[in-house]
Amino acid sequence: MSVLIVGSTALDSIKTPRRANPRLLGGSASHAAVAGSFFAPVKLVGIVGHDFPPRYIRLYQKHKIDLDGLQIVNGKTFHWSGEYEVNMNNRRTIETELGVFETFTPTLPASYQNSAFVLLANIAPSLQAHVLDQMRRPRFVVADTMDLWLNIALPDLLKLLKRVTGFVLNDSEARQLTQRNNLVAAIKKIHQLGPKYVIVKKGEHGSILSSPRGLFNCPAFPLPCVVDPTGAGDSFVGALMGYLSTARGPIDFNLRRAMIYGSAVASFCCEGFGLKSPRAFRGAISINASRNWKK
Amino acid sequence: MSVLIVGSTALDSIKTPRRANPRLLGGSASHAAVAGSFFAPVKLVGIVGHDFPPRYIRLYQKHKIDLDGLQIVNGKTFHWSGEYEVNMNNRRTIETELGVFETFTPTLPASYQNSAFVLLANIAPSLQAHVLDQMRRPRFVVADTMDLWLNIALPDLLKLLKRVTGFVLNDSEARQLTQRNNLVAAIKKIHQLGPKYVIVKKGEHGSILSSPRGLFNCPAFPLPCVVDPTGAGDSFVGALMGYLSTARGPIDFNLRRAMIYGSAVASFCCEGFGLKSPRAFRGAISINASRNWKK
Repeated sequence: MSVLIVGSTALDSIKTPRRANPRLLGGSASHAAVAGSFFAPVKLVGIVGHDFPPRYIRLYQKHKIDLDGLQIVNGKTFHWSGEYEVNMNNRRTIETELGVFETFTPTLPASYQNSAFVLLANIAPSLQAHVLDQMRRPRFVVADTMDLWLNIALPDLLKLLKRVTGFVLNDSEARQLTQRNNLVAAIKKIHQLGPKYVIVKKGEHGSILSSPRGLFNCPAFPLPCVVDPTGAGDSFVGALMGYLSTARGPIDFNLRRAMIYGSAVASFCCEGFGLKSPRAFRGAISINASRNWKK
Repeated sequence: MSVLIVGSTALDSIKTPRRANPRLLGGSASHAAVAGSFFAPVKLVGIVGHDFPPRYIRLYQKHKIDLDGLQIVNGKTFHWSGEYEVNMNNRRTIETELGVFETFTPTLPASYQNSAFVLLANIAPSLQAHVLDQMRRPRFVVADTMDLWLNIALPDLLKLLKRVTGFVLNDSEARQLTQRNNLVAAIKKIHQLGPKYVIVKKGEHGSILSSPRGLFNCPAFPLPCVVDPTGAGDSFVGALMGYLSTARGPIDFNLRRAMIYGSAVASFCCEGFGLKSPRAFRGAISINASRNWKK
């Protein structure tokens, strides 16, 4: 089954203590779509400007990502520039140029509206809700978010949470959203806001799934060298949804395995800048190989 | 087999955002010894003053801890007072009164010198080495440490590391010791300093074992309420050594299971102040029950 993914499609200029890389392919939907494509067909919803490099369109195509829902319009592509601290865990936004994102209204092609698996990757909650409005009874809807929306669009986010099956956020966001410092207490409170499944991402410390079956602790792959963690969380949830859409059996059990796949793909994402790490492709090949072997 | 444990035996005055508790039973050896006692007979090496409350001696005895190596001398017991921040991960030392610890020379009773399993719990590395000097061919020696010794006794610590089989430290200490920010790189460098087994404690994020068989990720039990984490790391390594001393088979495999037991006992430690949490005892009972069931 295919996965519909909506989110940001962007150009990222990333500085780390080791290197600076301008105008890489970035954005939550780009990372999630490429990660998900290793497991299932992906339908992308997003917007880019006329300055969007054709080579990035070709990269999407190479991953067989359905681009019917990608709007290419006059104006500039969303551009984010940021800098990582030495510890590679904290990052600082240098500049955000919304460009064509300022007037973005995601409109689903008819062929997208029956998707069973929907990933509302990080984007304004009102846009995530607008995508959901156009869907016909999706089976499994997961939303991701970021601290910005907790700060400037909390009412929209709270409304959205009543409509999603799963919610993915990082540990500091979970604490901010619930005003609970203890993570277990925070997760409990997030369930009360709507989602049946809550996944808290903890960067290098892995992730925690809370489901009706209890808690599941998923480790992060211990990398000897982190080149650029941008998009790791998006890759994690993209791969997770990709795997989930192809797996048979109860969601609860599959979700645990999906997190392990998500964690593996996220680790490849951290090993290179942007979406061009050759390791990511090598990794994906071996992941696919193991899946084929299983069948 | 019994475990010899040397370390600090102290009175802890602990403030958390919820409560203040003066003069609790504390110290690395106290926590480790009580935790280890749930699995194996423990021989304690330490020093206290005449102000040490008899009820704490009775607590040791209740856990059948061999006190032949506990010196009770004129003077004041080592006293530490500290305060936890709201997030319960960061703590601040308010005062340290060394008392009788200032002149402590650990002397092993003859009955201690043949112990196969030795835990050099957190204490000055010169004292840890002095205990090792008195041992006859121990099978498995693990040392714990703290940032203080990295700052004021690094040469002693580096000498000690060449003599231990396992080394336990937390993630910030691993980074400080090796000047490596990446944890995998830090662990690699610690192996080069001597220890065959390196265990990095990450508080609520669990712990990582590095051994010739590779890395093992041990989660922390996700607690809905952390009352007082003081001694959690000592309890972890105490229970780990206790379990290890009774387990048959290859150390590498047993160590992984020992970490899970250590993690469970450490979680009970966090649920109450000092060493008086009733849950710790209930927990221990169920841990023992599961061990008996296994046999």
